[in-house]
Amino acid sequence: MTLPATNARWVLDNRPTGEASVSNFRRVDAPHAPLQDGQVRIKHHYLSLDPYMRGRMNDTKSYTAPQALGEVMIGGTVGEVVESKHPKYAVGDTVVGMGGWQQFSVVDASVMGAVRKVDATHVPLSHYLGAVGMPGVTAWYGLVKIIEPKAGQTMVVSAASGAVGSAFGALAKARGCRVVGIAGGADKCAYVVNELGFDACVDYKAHADAMSLTKALKTACPDGVDGYFENVGGMCLDAVLMRMNAFGRIAVCGMIAGYDGKPMPLAAPALILVNRLKVQGFIVSEHMEIWPEALTELGTMVGTGKFRPRESVAVGIDATPEAFLGLLKGRNFGKQVVKLV
Amino acid sequence: MTLPATNARWVLDNRPTGEASVSNFRRVDAPHAPLQDGQVRIKHHYLSLDPYMRGRMNDTKSYTAPQALGEVMIGGTVGEVVESKHPKYAVGDTVVGMGGWQQFSVVDASVMGAVRKVDATHVPLSHYLGAVGMPGVTAWYGLVKIIEPKAGQTMVVSAASGAVGSAFGALAKARGCRVVGIAGGADKCAYVVNELGFDACVDYKAHADAMSLTKALKTACPDGVDGYFENVGGMCLDAVLMRMNAFGRIAVCGMIAGYDGKPMPLAAPALILVNRLKVQGFIVSEHMEIWPEALTELGTMVGTGKFRPRESVAVGIDATPEAFLGLLKGRNFGKQVVKLV
Repeated sequence: MTLPATNARWVLDNRPTGEASVSNFRRVDAPHAPLQDGQVRIKHHYLSLDPYMRGRMNDTKSYTAPQALGEVMIGGTVGEVVESKHPKYAVGDTVVGMGGWQQFSVVDASVMGAVRKVDATHVPLSHYLGAVGMPGVTAWYGLVKIIEPKAGQTMVVSAASGAVGSAFGALAKARGCRVVGIAGGADKCAYVVNELGFDACVDYKAHADAMSLTKALKTACPDGVDGYFENVGGMCLDAVLMRMNAFGRIAVCGMIAGYDGKPMPLAAPALILVNRLKVQGFIVSEHMEIWPEALTELGTMVGTGKFRPRESVAVGIDATPEAFLGLLKGRNFGKQVVKLV
Repeated sequence: MTLPATNARWVLDNRPTGEASVSNFRRVDAPHAPLQDGQVRIKHHYLSLDPYMRGRMNDTKSYTAPQALGEVMIGGTVGEVVESKHPKYAVGDTVVGMGGWQQFSVVDASVMGAVRKVDATHVPLSHYLGAVGMPGVTAWYGLVKIIEPKAGQTMVVSAASGAVGSAFGALAKARGCRVVGIAGGADKCAYVVNELGFDACVDYKAHADAMSLTKALKTACPDGVDGYFENVGGMCLDAVLMRMNAFGRIAVCGMIAGYDGKPMPLAAPALILVNRLKVQGFIVSEHMEIWPEALTELGTMVGTGKFRPRESVAVGIDATPEAFLGLLKGRNFGKQVVKLV
């Protein structure tokens, strides 16, 4: 193919103080790098936008280095090979990778995990960034490896309509659990119950504090809560903690409520003792050994139509920062992607 | 033997509002119950006083029913059989049980776990209430089953000079760990290092807040903290949480700082995610299957003199409430018992 004159990309220009804003990012139109032996050039069809990116924008100690200033914002991508100097990749191959917020990426295809071929015939390509990608595997790990659900138990997930939450619900229903979501707004709650098949969904925006939210959870979870998948933190965690059954398990995947640097204490940690809970944080990229098993289950669910997750699709590279900020405010509905092709 | 005219006992008269006080208890001199078939009468040599008893005094939902008003305060006891209508127990047998705050108890010896014979020749009898009893097994479970230490890792325990903390230190040192205590006051810290053999001990009373305490912990734990055994909660938990290494484990055994009903939030639960921690509460009585293995190790350590835990000994049944309140304020030095014989 003929490449366009430049590769449009978004770099992190400066770090947020408090809320992130469009001014933290800067668009750069870069020349195309020449291809070295072993490399492939990928034209991105979709960019993935995920809450973890907000954490990377801060210059604080965390599980990975912060996003470097002046560099392309990191992120998952799915696209097609348009130029190859690697024997195992041909022009036209569909691949997922971590190409970042840009139209094209050049990757060293021999680096383990840098790029992976995917089947575009049974699964729509964008789902490799969501249900059949990192968010889906995240839900799988938390449910299967930390929560270890049993049929008949009650599972709760916050941000239930999102990419991770919706996959969590499908995986937990497949295991015979009662599944209850927490989501923001009546529309999302209706979607969670009517389209995703959750047993109930609680609208956290209808509750001013954790005490009010926990009462609503009591109605939605008459037998208490055995497993909780935490994407949010703050009021949701406080409210669910009060409903946990003895020997409950909490998988902590996200604390989006605290990303802007606001203090976010846990009101009653003594409940961990009182109810003999296990609370465990995890990062799915540290457990690559489970990805094949998880992706097989998730790909089958999506490929057979048993799980039809919704997506929020922003269009064009210019739309990326606004779409990302909307995700942080919960304006997306399902997995947030940016469509470039 | 000839029994005294009455059996002196302490019952819970009323529940504390805020701090517990002597007026919550009432002494009752009860007649001796006649012995039924299958029962034994035990003369208590020592009563055990433990922080968990404070939790039972509250009428709040917890992992067990509250202590009933007007009933003998619960608690571990060690003593001798003075009368038996059970074929497996003879007068003079030394036994541990849950006889409560009284001079004598009558138990149905055929009930599993109600009473257990112990060897009084190699281990001083009172230690069956401490290092070779429930507190020791508590330390063992948290260390071995939740923290799962590796040689060379750093372990921290709060209330380090107490019955659980001192046993935790001995068990962790035996596994090749660096062991750091947190205790209240210079005397206790000196004892923890010089007599119990911890590598370091931090005096929490020398620090006004968690930020100050965590700085002291940084010096005592130059390689961070891999395992933490929590007896206290509050400021100690906040301070240690900031020092945890990736994949650290926290065994939550006690939250004594919150027993008086004061709110005790956890300042930064997001660290559970950032450092991929496991935080797990437990009650040792729910894991009876590990007691034999734990008691064997603990009994050998004490019997061979490798572990010489200190005890605080109050004398006489009348001293019981004051000794208990002192324990809650940290006035004890090592395992708190009441000597009756």
